[in-house]
Amino acid sequence: MTDHGQPRASIVAIGDELLSGIRADANGPWLARRLSELGFRVGSILAVGDDPRRIGKTLRRALDESELVVCTGGLGPTTDDRTREAVAHAWDLELRESPEVLAEIRSRFRSRGYHEAPEPSRRMARLPEGASVLPNPAGLAPGLRLDLPGEAGGAADGVLILLPGIPREVRALLEGPVRDTLRDAFGEDLTPASVRTIHTTGIPESALVGRLEALLADVEGLEVAYRPSTLGVTLQLLGRGADADGRLDRAEERIGPVLAPYRYDAPDGDLATAVGRALNSSGLRIAVAESCTGGLVLKRLTDIPGSSGWVVGGVVAYADRIKEGWLEVPTSVLSAWGAVSEPVARAMAEGIRRRFGVEVGVGVTGIAGPGGGVEGKPVGTVWFGVAGARGTHAEKVWFPGGRAEVRERAAQHALHLVLRSVKAPGREERIRALDADPELSP
Amino acid sequence: MTDHGQPRASIVAIGDELLSGIRADANGPWLARRLSELGFRVGSILAVGDDPRRIGKTLRRALDESELVVCTGGLGPTTDDRTREAVAHAWDLELRESPEVLAEIRSRFRSRGYHEAPEPSRRMARLPEGASVLPNPAGLAPGLRLDLPGEAGGAADGVLILLPGIPREVRALLEGPVRDTLRDAFGEDLTPASVRTIHTTGIPESALVGRLEALLADVEGLEVAYRPSTLGVTLQLLGRGADADGRLDRAEERIGPVLAPYRYDAPDGDLATAVGRALNSSGLRIAVAESCTGGLVLKRLTDIPGSSGWVVGGVVAYADRIKEGWLEVPTSVLSAWGAVSEPVARAMAEGIRRRFGVEVGVGVTGIAGPGGGVEGKPVGTVWFGVAGARGTHAEKVWFPGGRAEVRERAAQHALHLVLRSVKAPGREERIRALDADPELSP
Repeated sequence: MTDHGQPRASIVAIGDELLSGIRADANGPWLARRLSELGFRVGSILAVGDDPRRIGKTLRRALDESELVVCTGGLGPTTDDRTREAVAHAWDLELRESPEVLAEIRSRFRSRGYHEAPEPSRRMARLPEGASVLPNPAGLAPGLRLDLPGEAGGAADGVLILLPGIPREVRALLEGPVRDTLRDAFGEDLTPASVRTIHTTGIPESALVGRLEALLADVEGLEVAYRPSTLGVTLQLLGRGADADGRLDRAEERIGPVLAPYRYDAPDGDLATAVGRALNSSGLRIAVAESCTGGLVLKRLTDIPGSSGWVVGGVVAYADRIKEGWLEVPTSVLSAWGAVSEPVARAMAEGIRRRFGVEVGVGVTGIAGPGGGVEGKPVGTVWFGVAGARGTHAEKVWFPGGRAEVRERAAQHALHLVLRSVKAPGREERIRALDADPELSP
Repeated sequence: MTDHGQPRASIVAIGDELLSGIRADANGPWLARRLSELGFRVGSILAVGDDPRRIGKTLRRALDESELVVCTGGLGPTTDDRTREAVAHAWDLELRESPEVLAEIRSRFRSRGYHEAPEPSRRMARLPEGASVLPNPAGLAPGLRLDLPGEAGGAADGVLILLPGIPREVRALLEGPVRDTLRDAFGEDLTPASVRTIHTTGIPESALVGRLEALLADVEGLEVAYRPSTLGVTLQLLGRGADADGRLDRAEERIGPVLAPYRYDAPDGDLATAVGRALNSSGLRIAVAESCTGGLVLKRLTDIPGSSGWVVGGVVAYADRIKEGWLEVPTSVLSAWGAVSEPVARAMAEGIRRRFGVEVGVGVTGIAGPGGGVEGKPVGTVWFGVAGARGTHAEKVWFPGGRAEVRERAAQHALHLVLRSVKAPGREERIRALDADPELSP
């Protein structure tokens, strides 16, 4: 695949607050991804302040280098919102009040129960001549499209899209009127990408790259991006051209077996969503006993809407006396093995399962740091237990990083263990067998 | 205060990954804030790809407009790291291997137990002629400073600072060698700012602005920035000039009484840190019973290093039967009032306090949504209870937003209630009285 046929795009964000470090530009990176999926080659993302002379100069330069410039911010009703006048001045266009836009703004204010639109909102109806209006599904200020002539002896004609700065409105505009108008303007030159997102956890980026690179080396027209985070690595497969979907299918088939132990499916990328679906469809309920994660596993599970259907609750047993008194971890086990040990993780998982009367019990005990590490149990050591009808699985993992990172990784690992134990073939039936054969429960 | 004497700065970030939307530029906004605190006026933040021709053109343009350009990324050992050669080419400088830098890189590899530095790391020692080296306290690739001549008939001379792209290294370089070299280069023109940060919670940004604006209107040489988030509003007071600190003192004194009910002090900006300090210094221990927040309050508390000294643990009572069985909330109360009610919040707080044997018990019960709202108890309704030695305080709050936002706000509010109850004058003694007079406990 070659890039060079793709139209070039630049992204410009307007606002003094972006330059004082108070707010980072939330639109630029998102727009870059969406424009590249639509078929553009993004050359730069730029943030500048509210000064109209600077805005005009910046936009002219950007259109010098790109066929498309998308600009966010400075379209609101206040006197700081100066993108419209900057564009008018830079290209020597008149600003004219649009009766249609003004009527639309007034009707929106009326529908919110106001008698009339406040005077400053009228500014939003003053458009540079020649601008076409892109209705804003999520806010008041409409987006604008201007087709601007190239420089004498310079670049070709270009399209300038002006959008408000609020991320929600940028997204709504881009997924509707902006996308349509871009397809209209660039249709034949665009080869939109097909994108597939794959979430993994439990394998570091370097290992994943090492194992997938060779498998994908000879697949043409495919870009693979890895987005690592504390919780795992998300892959993005991007294919262009006529058979993009077929290429993505073949790529996924090849890497499927390598990914299988680490992959999970969740539309929001959240492993807890995948755990919730698996528990829900199996009719299993869960309870969690947490020590070092201090409530984070339960927080992750109850983040999911509808989780009251499969989360019964849990105990944060931060002090050892709570592990003894509430989870029935024997005092002798605690003193013989220490709180961070296999028998204690097992006893916590089994204790919470029994005492909360659920099918799946989870225990997490470890050393999140910064203090508390000892010989043989350094900071980052965490023991996990998952108790089901047929018995309890326990394992130890060492996690790198500081306190927050160890806790995040440990909670993610606990969720991954639950998902695997619930989804393992035949496993579901075994866990379900609890009711039928209580003697098999630990 | 006038801006116009301040030297201008531009920030450039290099990397293809910044343009595909895979990663947002984490350095730009942070650098913007620090440079502005150091006394620069930041004019733009720009992200461009790894193409050396483009990098060179971008940096030349940036130096046209600014006396200082700080550029991050593209200094590593791989063939994608092309900032050095781009600069050399753009200003027609030779690239020369620096024996000192090479020796330093080799010695760092040796100190990590390698026999010799891998060949590609040698690239990091090839510097454009005239570059001075800024030692990197946190990584291998050093920062570089180049003093570059202005354009014929264009801008004046300028300083170009090249830094690696890893945020940790950028921060370490900027707080040490970069700051020193900038003071050296711009010393007399810089009027560094004094900055004071104030954290608040429980008051919306618009209300805060409304109440503070009039009080601060006539304080000269003061900039006030508001950074709102789901959890509260952080104020940044920035003063410049000779008496900057005095001005900040006077400003703080004026706004102190308005801020008092909402302000908390924590170096990391985390309210849980403030709660932990207050509990710790009062010798009080806490336990939490959570329903709608599902572990988030406990997670926030146990985020804090050393929290095992004052957090005993808690119960996530997601199902009503756990509220009854484990927290001793009477079944009659649950059925008469419903789980989201004042008597249940009180009973949860008192139950966890009694059963976990702690001085402070907290109960949180509410409707996080998206479902579950009923007449008189819409989604976002949350009841709180805080139980201490002298009794239990309960209150109801309605929080706007979706499920995640309601939970975040509710957990923050619970922490704020604890802080106020522990810090209220005389309150500490009353809570301490538990041991002395057990009959006063609920």
